[in-house]
Amino acid sequence: MSELSLRGVFAPTLTPVRADLSIDLPAYIEFCKRLLEGGCHGLVLFGTNSEATSFAATERMAAVDAVIEAGIPASKLVVGTGAASIFEAADLTRHAVQSGCRGALTLPPFYYPGVSEEGLFRSFAAIFDRVNDERLRMYFYHIPQVSGIPLSPSLLTRLAQAYPGQAAGVKDSSGDENNLLGLHEVARNFPGFAVFCGTEALLLKNMQGGGGGCISGMANVLPHVIRDLYDNWQAADAEERQNRTNWVRDAILDSGYNMIASLKVIVADQTGRKGWSRVRPPLVDLTKAEQEQLLARLSPPVPA
Amino acid sequence: MSELSLRGVFAPTLTPVRADLSIDLPAYIEFCKRLLEGGCHGLVLFGTNSEATSFAATERMAAVDAVIEAGIPASKLVVGTGAASIFEAADLTRHAVQSGCRGALTLPPFYYPGVSEEGLFRSFAAIFDRVNDERLRMYFYHIPQVSGIPLSPSLLTRLAQAYPGQAAGVKDSSGDENNLLGLHEVARNFPGFAVFCGTEALLLKNMQGGGGGCISGMANVLPHVIRDLYDNWQAADAEERQNRTNWVRDAILDSGYNMIASLKVIVADQTGRKGWSRVRPPLVDLTKAEQEQLLARLSPPVPA
Repeated sequence: MSELSLRGVFAPTLTPVRADLSIDLPAYIEFCKRLLEGGCHGLVLFGTNSEATSFAATERMAAVDAVIEAGIPASKLVVGTGAASIFEAADLTRHAVQSGCRGALTLPPFYYPGVSEEGLFRSFAAIFDRVNDERLRMYFYHIPQVSGIPLSPSLLTRLAQAYPGQAAGVKDSSGDENNLLGLHEVARNFPGFAVFCGTEALLLKNMQGGGGGCISGMANVLPHVIRDLYDNWQAADAEERQNRTNWVRDAILDSGYNMIASLKVIVADQTGRKGWSRVRPPLVDLTKAEQEQLLARLSPPVPA
Repeated sequence: MSELSLRGVFAPTLTPVRADLSIDLPAYIEFCKRLLEGGCHGLVLFGTNSEATSFAATERMAAVDAVIEAGIPASKLVVGTGAASIFEAADLTRHAVQSGCRGALTLPPFYYPGVSEEGLFRSFAAIFDRVNDERLRMYFYHIPQVSGIPLSPSLLTRLAQAYPGQAAGVKDSSGDENNLLGLHEVARNFPGFAVFCGTEALLLKNMQGGGGGCISGMANVLPHVIRDLYDNWQAADAEERQNRTNWVRDAILDSGYNMIASLKVIVADQTGRKGWSRVRPPLVDLTKAEQEQLLARLSPPVPA
């Protein structure tokens, strides 16, 4: 089996904001270090759980710069570079590549619904062509329940054929196991093409199918538990380790609160920094009562 | 009846692109002049028909600058300033206000689906507060079939109460007559609050209900026909004038082709500039055969 372009447990890093809604860079850098020390192989800066698209392109690039300047190796960073505009996505992608980052996780343009496969192919192709840098490794981001724009196996096949090696993989955040299995079929045709799942709940199945790992929101609060599963996916008790990742996600889903706002509340609790519970609109912070209800549901509490 | 903040027929101006997909500014400026001479009271630069969100914020601001520098009065311009990021939307809105433009047509943040009314209120409030300029007149953009994010009458009421005079109106592109009538109810409570329809097919009904006019994609190719209806909406034969606006839209809808790509083909035909038929991905140009089929359906042809 050839080596995959990327492997491991990655956190789509939550983005702390100040009261004025700007990114709290010191808290951000501290958190990035915490996640790497806690078990993550690397970080995805500006994924969906990072509220990526809620930040302007200029803010996103400045935050990547700040993280690298703080001493976090760019080789551990994948940057979410999706935007409604392919020119903006190309600017973000070029910046990530020129900063030495490991890869770009790229959404399709997400404003117009119902666009064709041809339109999506041209969109990603335009980003590749504008960046025009052989160091680029692009991971395509399938999260149709949020973006509204599914990426089909045939589109991914076409991209992998057109940009061999550089079309480096896919993140499947649909949560649909059958879709994930279909992506393994695509990957088998392209050496190095790495399939990541967006929920750690499918991590064991993804590893069994030859995938690269997970890029999971829950890795923001449970990096060590997910890393334990990743390291031991071939162990006899792997199912049990898989089940040990479940309780926080289940508690959030049972609460009915927004996943991103909930994860931030848990980080506020873990770090003792109350400001962590803030989100940028259009998301809404949990109220104090909601925060207490969420934390009370977590039994055992999430370890700090 | 108090004077509305904005009245007239506005074209959400199509944006010509070169083969490298950058905005063709000379063609753009020429087209803006053509529309104003052709009957439009004003232009909405960077609405949905303009492929607004397909362009980076920097491109959008540079294009507004170029149009004003070419001598088109800023008082005739409303600028579409919506973005997935409220900070980016605020940057675009501030630029429009400081350029002397008449108003901003602003989408809600459109990446995350299912956000709450509170989250949308906070989003628009953050834009107002960051721009912090009493000259700002904001028109809220309801186009749920594209953005995925409806703006409810109760949200609009809350915004009009919080930003009196500055929350200046709404554009309803849903095409839903009942929704439009509901917005007239909202408008009655707020002097000057102007209701625009996004399809000229509802222009007569909108004027009868006290609305301000239309911001209609079809005004890119039929400004004089729509202006005629606007000028004569109280005439005995207004229904007949309304019907005279229909044939181009009907032909495009019957063709099944993308509306924006189709309008650009018609402008290419009107102006004799073939490059006009280009769109930026994720939209896809009509093929030559499709272009011919579309134009053949238009009987009579759209006058140049």
